[in-house]
Amino acid sequence: MLQLYFSPMACSLASRIALMEAGLDARYHLVHLGTKTVADDNSDFRGISSKGAVPVLVLANGERLTESAAVLQYIADLTPERGLAPPPGDPDRYRLQEWLSFVGTEIHKAFLFPTFWYKDDASLAKPRARIAQTLSVPAAHLTDREFLVGQRFTVADAHLTWALLLLRAAGVDVAQWPSLAAYLERMQARPAVREAIATEMALRKAITPSPA
Amino acid sequence: MLQLYFSPMACSLASRIALMEAGLDARYHLVHLGTKTVADDNSDFRGISSKGAVPVLVLANGERLTESAAVLQYIADLTPERGLAPPPGDPDRYRLQEWLSFVGTEIHKAFLFPTFWYKDDASLAKPRARIAQTLSVPAAHLTDREFLVGQRFTVADAHLTWALLLLRAAGVDVAQWPSLAAYLERMQARPAVREAIATEMALRKAITPSPA
Ligand SMILES: N[C@@H](CCC(=O)N[C@@H](CS)C(=O)NCC(=O)O)C(=O)O
Ligand SMILES: N[C@@H](CCC(=O)N[C@@H](CS)C(=O)NCC(=O)O)C(=O)O
Repeated sequence: MLQLYFSPMACSLASRIALMEAGLDARYHLVHLGTKTVADDNSDFRGISSKGAVPVLVLANGERLTESAAVLQYIADLTPERGLAPPPGDPDRYRLQEWLSFVGTEIHKAFLFPTFWYKDDASLAKPRARIAQTLSVPAAHLTDREFLVGQRFTVADAHLTWALLLLRAAGVDVAQWPSLAAYLERMQARPAVREAIATEMALRKAITPSPA
Repeated sequence: MLQLYFSPMACSLASRIALMEAGLDARYHLVHLGTKTVADDNSDFRGISSKGAVPVLVLANGERLTESAAVLQYIADLTPERGLAPPPGDPDRYRLQEWLSFVGTEIHKAFLFPTFWYKDDASLAKPRARIAQTLSVPAAHLTDREFLVGQRFTVADAHLTWALLLLRAAGVDVAQWPSLAAYLERMQARPAVREAIATEMALRKAITPSPA
């Protein structure tokens, strides 16, 4: 069975959404990213991946795959009948890769990652100054489209859905871009997306010490 | 004919290396990233891509593809006989995507981009504190391998080669990791890589105002 190392509401949420949209069973291992430990047995998460970052997907043959763009395409290709990625060779496959890269580089690594990991204002001023220009790109693209690529939900949508949720948590007012706000609402109405988010929000609440 | 919008020694160098390793002809358009103008005719580069970033590959049908991870896979798949990417369906294809994502997110967007675009020390302290841990990942991987993926040069190597050159320019002493230094030397010994770098270094010199 597939296994996913994840942290609640971290970027690994996109991989959970993909697994659920694909209808694939998996074992989910919660990782405490602050201490780099696996919750199951308190073992060192760096023993699973030297990167110390989620997602890590353990494949049926035991190999471990990291990096959302790769993990998401891998999951999509396991169940081609679900259409979670255009098939290899289809010109739209490169559009999928383009959006996966855009979310992973320009939204996640350029903005969300510093916001949640660096925290201090000095580190965040420049990333904050760029994010509106960055978001104008998917906002324009989604003005007259339901999904990022083609006419159906793909793993690129799983990736962007996660990013938009976190942008909101980072204090970016997504409602500034009506096409993005409407898109996020559409995506959240999907049963698999809704269930994935509900599961991780509940876990997050359970592991976050309640204030006072 | 393919066309590549590039800026000398920017991340678009990886796409130029890929085109040259593929033996593909292309028209190259120099972009001034500071002013977002295309050097050919001083036109607005944002008219070519609203992202305002290189690389932009113009396909034979006139469509424009952005994001290095997508552009590099597209180029590789045009000439499968060159083996610049494992074929779709090959398990190594996901390893290629994993490395493309790692270079694009963890090395480029997390470190090189702030270094060259944000410049001020406050923005750079946290990215600098992480880069050694980041580079230990490819350093360990390349200890007993000639290339990132499989037994031959792929577009992932084009991407990492560019990143290592820029890391050096950013003041990171790549020689700290002997496997990375040796790898970079091997890659630079390839005729296509050498020629791509020489071309862009010459252009860079030509457009950079000489000091006083
Ligand atoms: N480039 C990776 C980024 C992975 C990543 O940054 N994961 C975060 C959570 S969203 C993490 O585990 N951070 C812990 C750390 O970097 O120490 C991907 O796209 O999967
Ligand atoms: N995620 C993009 C990044 C592209 C990028 O950051 N390009 C830089 C040059 S290396 C650029 O054009 N910067 C100008 C800007 O962002 O204003 C990719 O992987 O291709």
